[in-house]
Amino acid sequence: MRSDNSVTVLAGGVGGAKLAEGFARLDGDLSVIVNTADDARVYGLAISPDLDTVMYTLAGIANPRTGWGIDGDTVAVLDQMRRLGQDTWFTLGDADLATHVLRTDRLHRGIPLSTVTAELATALGVRAALVPMTDDRVATLVDTTAGRFGFQEYFVARRHADTVTALTFDGVADATPAPGVLEGLREPDVVAIAPSNPFVSVGPILAVPGVRAALASSSAWRVAVSPVIGGAALKGPAAQMLADLGHEVSALGVARLYTGLIDAMCIDERDAGLAPAIADLGVDVIVTNTVMAGGADRERLARELLAERAR
Amino acid sequence: MRSDNSVTVLAGGVGGAKLAEGFARLDGDLSVIVNTADDARVYGLAISPDLDTVMYTLAGIANPRTGWGIDGDTVAVLDQMRRLGQDTWFTLGDADLATHVLRTDRLHRGIPLSTVTAELATALGVRAALVPMTDDRVATLVDTTAGRFGFQEYFVARRHADTVTALTFDGVADATPAPGVLEGLREPDVVAIAPSNPFVSVGPILAVPGVRAALASSSAWRVAVSPVIGGAALKGPAAQMLADLGHEVSALGVARLYTGLIDAMCIDERDAGLAPAIADLGVDVIVTNTVMAGGADRERLARELLAERAR
Repeated sequence: MRSDNSVTVLAGGVGGAKLAEGFARLDGDLSVIVNTADDARVYGLAISPDLDTVMYTLAGIANPRTGWGIDGDTVAVLDQMRRLGQDTWFTLGDADLATHVLRTDRLHRGIPLSTVTAELATALGVRAALVPMTDDRVATLVDTTAGRFGFQEYFVARRHADTVTALTFDGVADATPAPGVLEGLREPDVVAIAPSNPFVSVGPILAVPGVRAALASSSAWRVAVSPVIGGAALKGPAAQMLADLGHEVSALGVARLYTGLIDAMCIDERDAGLAPAIADLGVDVIVTNTVMAGGADRERLARELLAERAR
Repeated sequence: MRSDNSVTVLAGGVGGAKLAEGFARLDGDLSVIVNTADDARVYGLAISPDLDTVMYTLAGIANPRTGWGIDGDTVAVLDQMRRLGQDTWFTLGDADLATHVLRTDRLHRGIPLSTVTAELATALGVRAALVPMTDDRVATLVDTTAGRFGFQEYFVARRHADTVTALTFDGVADATPAPGVLEGLREPDVVAIAPSNPFVSVGPILAVPGVRAALASSSAWRVAVSPVIGGAALKGPAAQMLADLGHEVSALGVARLYTGLIDAMCIDERDAGLAPAIADLGVDVIVTNTVMAGGADRERLARELLAERAR
């Protein structure tokens, strides 16, 4: 099997970072198109949680316990923020903060996020192309039975405990795909939708004008990896959101969301029983171990996806 | 002796902070008007070195070895900046960085530096009024035989080793004294010019339109403490600048710079021989130990100055 394919991964945070790392461990060109609708300002600093999670993972410096942040990082700045009377519900590590300070400065100078991201990733030794979905501001607003919240407030401060009634990607109608996004979707060998939250991680990427159409008409072999295994998400509120928004809480429910955009759906062995129903949607079904605990697991999954494509 | 006087100190960094702390240890109202012409942007963060040195000192958290920065601070952010390929000649501690991040955010929101400074000082438990000389941008430019440099580049990066030929306070002609500056000069019981560099610390304050006139016509008893002892400065380039710019390198040279602005000059015991010549300038001369090693020394000097005023 040749593995020097060109691959584009659509990614949110931790799940996206893991699959991207799997492909990064193989030969070939890798682009990772990353959700930025979770981006936030904290103390005026420009935070891009999903971009940083993917970047730190590909740079080999991610915290293996949390999946986000930098391994071994300290929180001296945050401790001082607390002493200064500031809210500190959003954890920012010290080394992590260097990223945010530089990003904020560059953005204030008018440099687009995609350029800043490429600079930071290069400085950290990342070889893959790390591409924000857009250079424009898009912000996920979460309507819940407890009111409307910005994404980080819903996700971090309120620990995604509220029942979600609707999602709005504020600004997305006026957003333009960042340089490399449409190119990365049209003609690679493979486009992989990572096991990220389909609503708040992959959803915003697909909502950027032109992206859904580029993926729908892509010449690539397109595969999605289900973030839902055995009716639950490995991480985050994906399962709860499927339920809240009236979808089946399973890999089948996820596959339905991607109808028309994928050639194959990759599901976990535990969900093998769903394969016939997913196949009825007109997509190939790949059944394997989709839990990517370590680097070897991630590489194996990436390799298996490429092998399926080659069949 | 009553010590519940109202006192205003004109201060640069470390020397100013020490004298301000001396007065802060006594009863009475204290205002500290601080030089901001050393302010700089580092990684886009708004750094106010003199304000922070005075603030940390009055908050009791200053690094006692350096005089600047926060005691026990770490440099994790700076270490990461180095890994990211950034210049790191300007040392920013982690806890210190919290100050700069908050200040930068507040300034970007359009809040004046004087308000931001008061908020930060209050959060750190500082009771004295900490007042920047102006809310407007003023930047010291140092002309040397090696070229023109911004102040921090001259002072930190090049370790004030160049021969100074001229000083420019860029923007000062259009600057307005911050709220509290003129009020703090006109009618306190005492105005003390700290043993700070007369050219680049006190000089910019006096160059803000209206400040020199307010001090010259003040009803306060005005005293300056010489930063030059035995022909040398305790810290920084004050002595070298006196020489470079053609002044006598002594407390007499400093006293001449303040002619018309002070009622008394406080010099160190080692310079007692200069007292007659300084008295000839028409000012009272106070001879004492002016080295403020610890808090007790600082309080003693402040107390002695107040006692001289009461005579």
